[in-house]
Amino acid sequence: MRDGTAHRRIERFHELEWVLNEVIGRVFPLTGNELLRPLDAIGRTVTEDVFAPVDRPPYDASHMDGYAVRSSELRGASRERPVVLKVDGFTGPNERGPPLGPGCARRILTGGYMPEGADAVVPQEEVTVEGGSVSVRRPLRPFEYVDRVGSDLRRGSVVVRAGEVLTPVKGALLETLGVRSVRVMRLPEVGVLSFGSELTDDPVEADAGKVLNTHAPMVVSMLKKLPCRPRYLGLIPDDLDAARAALKTALEKSDMVLTIGGSSVSELDVVPMVLSEVSDFFAQGLKMQPGRVGGAAVVNGRPVIVLPALVHSTVNVLNELGVPVLAHLASAKLDQFFALTVATLSEPVVFHKWIDFVKVVWVSVSRSDGRLTCRPHLSESSVFSSIAFSDGYLTVRPHLERLEAGAEVVVKRPLWML
Amino acid sequence: MRDGTAHRRIERFHELEWVLNEVIGRVFPLTGNELLRPLDAIGRTVTEDVFAPVDRPPYDASHMDGYAVRSSELRGASRERPVVLKVDGFTGPNERGPPLGPGCARRILTGGYMPEGADAVVPQEEVTVEGGSVSVRRPLRPFEYVDRVGSDLRRGSVVVRAGEVLTPVKGALLETLGVRSVRVMRLPEVGVLSFGSELTDDPVEADAGKVLNTHAPMVVSMLKKLPCRPRYLGLIPDDLDAARAALKTALEKSDMVLTIGGSSVSELDVVPMVLSEVSDFFAQGLKMQPGRVGGAAVVNGRPVIVLPALVHSTVNVLNELGVPVLAHLASAKLDQFFALTVATLSEPVVFHKWIDFVKVVWVSVSRSDGRLTCRPHLSESSVFSSIAFSDGYLTVRPHLERLEAGAEVVVKRPLWML
Repeated sequence: MRDGTAHRRIERFHELEWVLNEVIGRVFPLTGNELLRPLDAIGRTVTEDVFAPVDRPPYDASHMDGYAVRSSELRGASRERPVVLKVDGFTGPNERGPPLGPGCARRILTGGYMPEGADAVVPQEEVTVEGGSVSVRRPLRPFEYVDRVGSDLRRGSVVVRAGEVLTPVKGALLETLGVRSVRVMRLPEVGVLSFGSELTDDPVEADAGKVLNTHAPMVVSMLKKLPCRPRYLGLIPDDLDAARAALKTALEKSDMVLTIGGSSVSELDVVPMVLSEVSDFFAQGLKMQPGRVGGAAVVNGRPVIVLPALVHSTVNVLNELGVPVLAHLASAKLDQFFALTVATLSEPVVFHKWIDFVKVVWVSVSRSDGRLTCRPHLSESSVFSSIAFSDGYLTVRPHLERLEAGAEVVVKRPLWML
Repeated sequence: MRDGTAHRRIERFHELEWVLNEVIGRVFPLTGNELLRPLDAIGRTVTEDVFAPVDRPPYDASHMDGYAVRSSELRGASRERPVVLKVDGFTGPNERGPPLGPGCARRILTGGYMPEGADAVVPQEEVTVEGGSVSVRRPLRPFEYVDRVGSDLRRGSVVVRAGEVLTPVKGALLETLGVRSVRVMRLPEVGVLSFGSELTDDPVEADAGKVLNTHAPMVVSMLKKLPCRPRYLGLIPDDLDAARAALKTALEKSDMVLTIGGSSVSELDVVPMVLSEVSDFFAQGLKMQPGRVGGAAVVNGRPVIVLPALVHSTVNVLNELGVPVLAHLASAKLDQFFALTVATLSEPVVFHKWIDFVKVVWVSVSRSDGRLTCRPHLSESSVFSSIAFSDGYLTVRPHLERLEAGAEVVVKRPLWML
């Protein structure tokens, strides 16, 4: 720092929601998509609503292994006076067979389609088989042990909404319904750049005195569980030209760039310097703590998320700004990436600073007596362990200076990072 | 079915916990393990406790970009009478530099180690730099803006417990602590076999009248998110010899086998027939509904989990029996695969049958007014949509015949299947 110059500082901290809206307003969702078999589309973001093309089941179906019967013919059946029905054949899976004759029963297995005329199934455990006939010893209600046509899904009903990441169960359901392809978003390319001359990716150099770069592989590991293709693009020294070049290349080959570190106001923090030169939009400073030296930019229509280097800030800005922007880019619903849990706070949390900021508090959740309790991990933003041992976090609204012990709080669990 | 013979039936349904214990008592946890770099071990099951080899931070460290100072020298500092300190140099990241001289301040960045003698950091925004000196305009508390040695983690404290699946954050933390390798379980090989002559893996054959086998790829997709290596081993017709051969081969190349379908009591259900021949232990019939025609066996010390074909039963037996056995095999903690949520039940649930069984009820969870509500999807066990649209499930203890609307219930979210 030369004499006579003032240190730079973050002039103004921005509301997170404002930053998010400014970025989203300048970034178009991706357009590329592909057609995949539902089973191959599991884990991908579906881009258009998918409807059931048929009823499921397509006909009334048996819920049991047993015999399809006419319930009207069994009205008087009892242990003392069983009704004897002739077994007129077997209906195999996925076939309907001929209509059921009067006085007859049809052998049927679970999931088999009911022959025309039959309206109930007597489970095989309840009959006696003798001479090609079965004896039934009780009456059956109409549709007893029958899964009605369309009872699982009606033709035309929505199975998957645009923006959902396809789950294994929904993938299997679509296949079962005869859907042979679904349109899914191509995987957004997310470039990750680390900044800092003190860093190394080599453990041997780290043992010799440099700082091991663990944030980039950590962030990449997390992103791998989201529907995107993360790529670590290397370590950039604290040098303006190097940073300019790296960011340019990263933006050329990525749909979105995450920078880690070099985001603050010292003379080594090159990320904001470069972004203020090249961005259409750039906000440094977020009204979120930890995370306040994070930010976001848009360069030629591509988003850049500025993750600070202290681990809480890195993770909080990724969660609250990076993932929402990624969701926008991929037209994916954001809420599916976080699970919410309501828990009782074990102890009070008091905020002394950054009063008009959103505060992020990481917590452990444990269960006792059928209730969930959450214990805050209060620590400075450099403290790795408090995130490592957490199950999720609270976001506390600005100006709330105190959470009371016993308060019911909503815990956000980022499913892809835990 | 020949005349004069009785249909087979499940004679006795077994308590799930008893079956689980019988299996676990006969199956040794796997022994193979490997040493991996922590960052490469993310997603793997750690086999021994890992301790912090050093304090973190290893020295007192600066929490801000600024100047390391002696707080005792700033006692009288004020806006009117600032204390002027000579800047005696810069301490770069990961170095300590020489002790701080009296009347001096040391330029330091966030995370930098405090020089000997310094006990507080004045943030750069608060000073004026002039002629190689800084003016400080207020007193500082001892250790203000200092992260104390060991405040994140104490040397010797446990970072990862044996049985935990390593998360990205813990992987990064271990690397940061200088841990260069962790011992992880080899990935258990899980063989998946589907049974049913009516099934096909080929959509074209399905369009021509066969039933598409969607359960096996669905189960494999779910297992892929767990620390194991699932392998689909093919479709077996309803034929005893084919089933014998397939099961034998599957057991030879797998640490654990999941069978899907063919698990009930009809003449086509070959799985229980083969397992009763070859098993050291075999229980068919579980006191869990849906799921009652599931079971488990141990053959030559290897577990076989019998998943029924109706989708609720498939998934419930996988969740409540398959995953616990897998966790035992891999010496992994079971609770990490499920997240618990407490929610308020939106409507009553009444059970008319299987009263002394555990009942599994799939639910949707939604949030309103900071509370979580769960809505039960009541349906037959063949109904795909009720699982597909669910967020988790309740397990209801035997003999409880009714859950009331408004009850607080614990929702289990299988993180790896949703």
